[in-house]
Amino acid sequence: MTRFYAPDIESTHALPESESAHAVRVLRKRAGDEIEVVDGVGGLYICRLLTEHHKSAALEIIERRELPKVWKPEICIAVAPTKHNDRMEWLIEKAVEIGIDSFVPILTARSERKQINVERFEKIAVSAMKQSLKAVLPQIHPMTPLRDYLKSLRAGTQNFVGWCDSESERKLLAKACAPAHDTNILIGPEGDFTPEEIDACLEAGFTAVTMGDNRLRTETAALVGLDTVHIINQVFSE
Amino acid sequence: MTRFYAPDIESTHALPESESAHAVRVLRKRAGDEIEVVDGVGGLYICRLLTEHHKSAALEIIERRELPKVWKPEICIAVAPTKHNDRMEWLIEKAVEIGIDSFVPILTARSERKQINVERFEKIAVSAMKQSLKAVLPQIHPMTPLRDYLKSLRAGTQNFVGWCDSESERKLLAKACAPAHDTNILIGPEGDFTPEEIDACLEAGFTAVTMGDNRLRTETAALVGLDTVHIINQVFSE
Repeated sequence: MTRFYAPDIESTHALPESESAHAVRVLRKRAGDEIEVVDGVGGLYICRLLTEHHKSAALEIIERRELPKVWKPEICIAVAPTKHNDRMEWLIEKAVEIGIDSFVPILTARSERKQINVERFEKIAVSAMKQSLKAVLPQIHPMTPLRDYLKSLRAGTQNFVGWCDSESERKLLAKACAPAHDTNILIGPEGDFTPEEIDACLEAGFTAVTMGDNRLRTETAALVGLDTVHIINQVFSE
Repeated sequence: MTRFYAPDIESTHALPESESAHAVRVLRKRAGDEIEVVDGVGGLYICRLLTEHHKSAALEIIERRELPKVWKPEICIAVAPTKHNDRMEWLIEKAVEIGIDSFVPILTARSERKQINVERFEKIAVSAMKQSLKAVLPQIHPMTPLRDYLKSLRAGTQNFVGWCDSESERKLLAKACAPAHDTNILIGPEGDFTPEEIDACLEAGFTAVTMGDNRLRTETAALVGLDTVHIINQVFSE
């Protein structure tokens, strides 16, 4: 059954405009049809469509279920957006499918892309959330300068920075990552971090890591990093 | 330094046409310039360009190095191609970056895509090999009917089939996958395998697995499966 996204369903008892149009005009849902609606914060609602209004389709909530995320630790991926925006867009789609709590586009000295469209990223996250049958929408942050990001980190998380410089000492993420810990993974731009930026990361308590002996594109490194955290948590779970 | 691909470099001592044009016309390489060439079977050649011919740029081989793949077991991913071909194309790009030995497009009863362009897939694999600084080109197979694929498997490999049916018993891939074993991962079409196809897989010695409690798209499941094999091999390596 197709899922719809209505963050304000509790107050509006209706689908927002884009979802109403999708339900009524594209999927031809009719009054009386049952649909599933998620609120982006873990609520799954079994609803009955009351009107076929293409801008605000009214709903009767038949049942509300809790649909929490299926992984335990908080996982945040911070990435310097790539020159080609489509690579960031698929990263967001895949990261939401695989499971992520927040995504932070990072502005670095060598970033080829200085601006991103947060609304567009959120739209991709919403459709990936619906497609992968989740009810929790990850937080998509606006472009954040590296130093602000480093200042914003909570205490008690394990923090890893993917770094290309093969001269320096780096740990293998799969071995350095501990299960059941909130985790931040930071991936630099295509041109890598500057030495000053890496120093700032290390001072902020980040561990320099590699994903293995492969040179990965920025978006691939971010996805492999995310995957590694999930797999480590699966392998070492009871 | 940009890498070029010349599978016949030992016999031709030249770049093939497409690579010659790329070197001479796009990258403006000139006679006397040093370039790196890979042969797709583990050879990295440090070469000097002798001519600026855009169809067959002659090379002097200065040095030949062995550049074997960095992972131990043979890893084969077999996937029923998705309706949208671009999803298969990025899967191949990412799989080659992360590391794969062979890729088999599988024809199943519910496959939405019955034909693929192997040459196009190979082209993507070549550029991903060069981009990720590898010298070994994974084998890209033509579309293969499921039963032929199951018959073709070597003995002694561990075989996993990703299966959507949550009613049936499936193992978690991250726990079922043993390190240092040649591994085959089979992912079905968007509409899933038929019960008969799953029976054939189980008879052929496949273990039904899930990648976790997330519903993943076909191409995401294939990438997560590949990643899982690499991470298990990293975690349990000396």
